[in-house]
Amino acid sequence: MEKLKLEVCLSPAMFHRYDCNGVIVVVIDVLRACSAICTAFENGAAEIIPVAEVEEAREYKKKGFLVAAERDGFTLDFADFGNSPFNFTRDRVEGRTIAYSTTNGTRILEMTEKSYKTIIGAFLNISSVTDWILNEKKDVILFCAGWKDRFSLEDTVCAGAFSSRLIESGKFITICDSVHASLDIWDKARNNVRGYIEKAAQRTRLREKGLDDCIDFCLTKDYTTIIPVVEKGKIIPLKCK
Amino acid sequence: MEKLKLEVCLSPAMFHRYDCNGVIVVVIDVLRACSAICTAFENGAAEIIPVAEVEEAREYKKKGFLVAAERDGFTLDFADFGNSPFNFTRDRVEGRTIAYSTTNGTRILEMTEKSYKTIIGAFLNISSVTDWILNEKKDVILFCAGWKDRFSLEDTVCAGAFSSRLIESGKFITICDSVHASLDIWDKARNNVRGYIEKAAQRTRLREKGLDDCIDFCLTKDYTTIIPVVEKGKIIPLKCK
Repeated sequence: MEKLKLEVCLSPAMFHRYDCNGVIVVVIDVLRACSAICTAFENGAAEIIPVAEVEEAREYKKKGFLVAAERDGFTLDFADFGNSPFNFTRDRVEGRTIAYSTTNGTRILEMTEKSYKTIIGAFLNISSVTDWILNEKKDVILFCAGWKDRFSLEDTVCAGAFSSRLIESGKFITICDSVHASLDIWDKARNNVRGYIEKAAQRTRLREKGLDDCIDFCLTKDYTTIIPVVEKGKIIPLKCK
Repeated sequence: MEKLKLEVCLSPAMFHRYDCNGVIVVVIDVLRACSAICTAFENGAAEIIPVAEVEEAREYKKKGFLVAAERDGFTLDFADFGNSPFNFTRDRVEGRTIAYSTTNGTRILEMTEKSYKTIIGAFLNISSVTDWILNEKKDVILFCAGWKDRFSLEDTVCAGAFSSRLIESGKFITICDSVHASLDIWDKARNNVRGYIEKAAQRTRLREKGLDDCIDFCLTKDYTTIIPVVEKGKIIPLKCK
């Protein structure tokens, strides 16, 4: 059987060099958006609408939606809560549609519109995402969301964890240098991921804003089996075959 | 003494997120441009003019300049030779000005115009570049040229080798995730750099075109003490204090 192709994109700034037509794109933003989205669905959220602009989020609030919105770590005054996964509790989100403010995320979803499917990947759902990919038999791009177009260590560690599982399955090959880099970084990190990402810039940013309480949780494997998927600009739980 | 700041940029596509104003930028393109430029100066070249377009290179040829120009591994018919370091022999280049065709390189030099100095770094001049940086007392960006805006393993290995020396000097600190990644990749590669980059895409591309004879040479440390520096759009040997 011909092997499937695996690539890693280390920043949205480089994605124009990738062809995602017909490919599974796994968006990875470990701290914290993708982890928050996984948590919301595990706690029963119906759907998530990614929203680029603050004013757009405000309009959703006026229409009665739940709104998760932060800027620079501060929950916006009109929002229901900020972007920490811990805010997406069952009593708040079950059955609800949530407008989630994320400029970077919205841009990434626009970039990946031609994909076969764009899904949300994290440590929190790593096994179910991997299993689903292995059944789908499509080429894969692991898309690290990064931070303001810069390289992010924790997203690359997670991409390496996915790469490791996909390559070890024997079904994927790669000629992508970023896959090799992510695998080597994963190999450095795997025995102590929490300790490894102490040096990550996002870890420092979250500490300085008092938002780092969720890091252990975000590095937890298989908290949920749900795979969030993008459908017509919204994110919903994937219905697996 | 306040420590100096070290950053690594993994692709030209991400450089808009870096502020190079007043900073030393070290451009790294191990296979093969930066290695070829180091070789040219070691063999007595007077200056190198980076040229973006083929037509511009042709004009330089008509004016009597030496021209190094390839497209997809083939030496252009009007050029004197291609871009392998082995072409820049003393009998050809001594005392001459060379027009060097490089679309990516020309773009990178435009991006770094506001730097304190933009220099060419490679394994071939790693010690002299490091020593010079340590004397200059400026912040540093190691700028990996990559390939068509994509991440390049061999350039990141070289950036890691530079990062390792600069951080170990005790004079530099970093809060840049790409520095940490380059250091970890360097740590994986350092005992056998030649073996490590066997998996690099550029290594495969060069093999397929029969252009891989220069790889061992490009990974040689300290073939030269010359530091090529950009001055008014041309590259010349730096006159050290």
